Amino acid sequence: MKPLTQPPTLQDLRETHAAIQPLIHRTPVLTCRSLDARSGAELYFKCENFQKVGAFKMRGAASAALRLSPGERQHGLATHSSGNHAQAVARAARELGVPAYVVMPRNAPKIKVAAVRGYGAEVIPCEPTLEARETGLADVVARTGAAFIHPYDDYSVIAGQATAAIELIEDAGAPLDIVLAPVGGGGLMSGTALAARFLAPGIRVYGAEPELADDARRSLEAGQLLHNTRTDTIADGLRTNLSSRTFGILQAQLDGIFAVSEAEIVEAMRLVWERMKIIIEPSCAVPLAAVLRNPAVFAGKRTGIILTGGNVDLESLPF
Amino acid sequence: MKPLTQPPTLQDLRETHAAIQPLIHRTPVLTCRSLDARSGAELYFKCENFQKVGAFKMRGAASAALRLSPGERQHGLATHSSGNHAQAVARAARELGVPAYVVMPRNAPKIKVAAVRGYGAEVIPCEPTLEARETGLADVVARTGAAFIHPYDDYSVIAGQATAAIELIEDAGAPLDIVLAPVGGGGLMSGTALAARFLAPGIRVYGAEPELADDARRSLEAGQLLHNTRTDTIADGLRTNLSSRTFGILQAQLDGIFAVSEAEIVEAMRLVWERMKIIIEPSCAVPLAAVLRNPAVFAGKRTGIILTGGNVDLESLPF
Repeated sequence: MKPLTQPPTLQDLRETHAAIQPLIHRTPVLTCRSLDARSGAELYFKCENFQKVGAFKMRGAASAALRLSPGERQHGLATHSSGNHAQAVARAARELGVPAYVVMPRNAPKIKVAAVRGYGAEVIPCEPTLEARETGLADVVARTGAAFIHPYDDYSVIAGQATAAIELIEDAGAPLDIVLAPVGGGGLMSGTALAARFLAPGIRVYGAEPELADDARRSLEAGQLLHNTRTDTIADGLRTNLSSRTFGILQAQLDGIFAVSEAEIVEAMRLVWERMKIIIEPSCAVPLAAVLRNPAVFAGKRTGIILTGGNVDLESLPF
Repeated sequence: MKPLTQPPTLQDLRETHAAIQPLIHRTPVLTCRSLDARSGAELYFKCENFQKVGAFKMRGAASAALRLSPGERQHGLATHSSGNHAQAVARAARELGVPAYVVMPRNAPKIKVAAVRGYGAEVIPCEPTLEARETGLADVVARTGAAFIHPYDDYSVIAGQATAAIELIEDAGAPLDIVLAPVGGGGLMSGTALAARFLAPGIRVYGAEPELADDARRSLEAGQLLHNTRTDTIADGLRTNLSSRTFGILQAQLDGIFAVSEAEIVEAMRLVWERMKIIIEPSCAVPLAAVLRNPAVFAGKRTGIILTGGNVDLESLPF
């Protein structure tokens, strides 16, 4: 395997899935009759909240790390992130026996900084701006020679994220009509769309976004990459903008994007906690919120939803 | 099947398990490497938080209801409970097509009252004293002819609760050294101990209790039934006292009882939420708290823990 310089093919996805096995869990696909009754759909939840590091990000980081040659990764892995990708890169590096360097904003939750350090990574604090993060990353790469793993603008990462949908389609136990994922930077959504197109050609593929961070919906409507103008949605994993690579894939592959309100996100999150007894983070609740908001689209449809992660600060819950 | 008038035999447990299948889920047994690392034990969690009504109580209610003849249950099922047993009886009645009557204290959480009504039961409010509950129940039984299902002082209920341990022992994938359950009224603990003795004779069977509600530990030490003197533990499912039937079984079968502090309960609950990404109620965290407090007992031991339920009020969490 080598780093991918083109959108992944089916063979790329298969190779990726085989290669990352030692670094990931095969997470379960759960169903819930009371949410089926509530939504009118037949829902299949792919539980990446049970993934290593508590999020699907482990898949993309593992894929990118394993596609580097031993020489390319010998000086370690580097990234900038305040969230799950930071933990994923740190853990992938530890599993591969190389150092990790993570540039994190000073206002990142202490529990996340502690988790990244817990995997043995060096944390480089920076000011909480994108510019400071990028400068910090460039400094670290110059100093250490570590390989940068972008959270989503990287076809190798996208190939890794696609493996969640591969497993969802294989394990649902019935052919899915629709697959849904949340859209942040678009890495998971791109991988999900490609996996669905390759493995289940008749399936419809939708994204779901907060109204407060609907750059993907607006970008697809406008036919050009537009940015979010605010970053205050509760769905903190979805505040980022699409990149050129993910925008290109979503333009080609997506059937549409649903946007939902903050209140709808909290309500969907609460429903999953109460009815399924599993912990999901707010970003994760966005696709279910889209299903509940658009019953005519999903009525009677076997709908696969990727639950992306379960890393929440238990001391600041929205309930 | 008929109501059991003696402690259940292995054959009683097998018959019960077969009979209640249509009314229960076979819940998963989960493991968690980070909790293994933290505890030094090898932990197998039987996830009754994923059971119907969100708790193991469904098993006992189903067993007791199914052991009644159609004539005995034709006028419905009745109980008094502010917790999971109320929902279990209501749901069992609905599945059997008979009415349910639940005497609930006026200060019971609204969400629990709503859940019981949601299963179609008639809720009879009463003052929050044991006397008022028992009087309310007697009135309902006299008025309706419904059959009373006690939450734990009933061998038929105990046989139902035992089926969680049967599945845990079958599904752990390795022979268990120890099995642990929380002790409230003792129905689950009695059933767990019997199942373990029948199916895995060499296994050690321990109970776990809050220090603030350690009636079982004190009763076993004293050789006579003693009561709790306070009812303010956060583990609200464990505030009840043993009964004569459960005390008798525990005296004969238990290897010991560990008591834990309130802080230890909250810490164990938080660990399960954070590391396993599943929702458990405080009562449920008591056995893990006991493992963490007594590392020498559990070091290297394959330890099965019954996670009893996941019904928590998300608006009043202890974090």
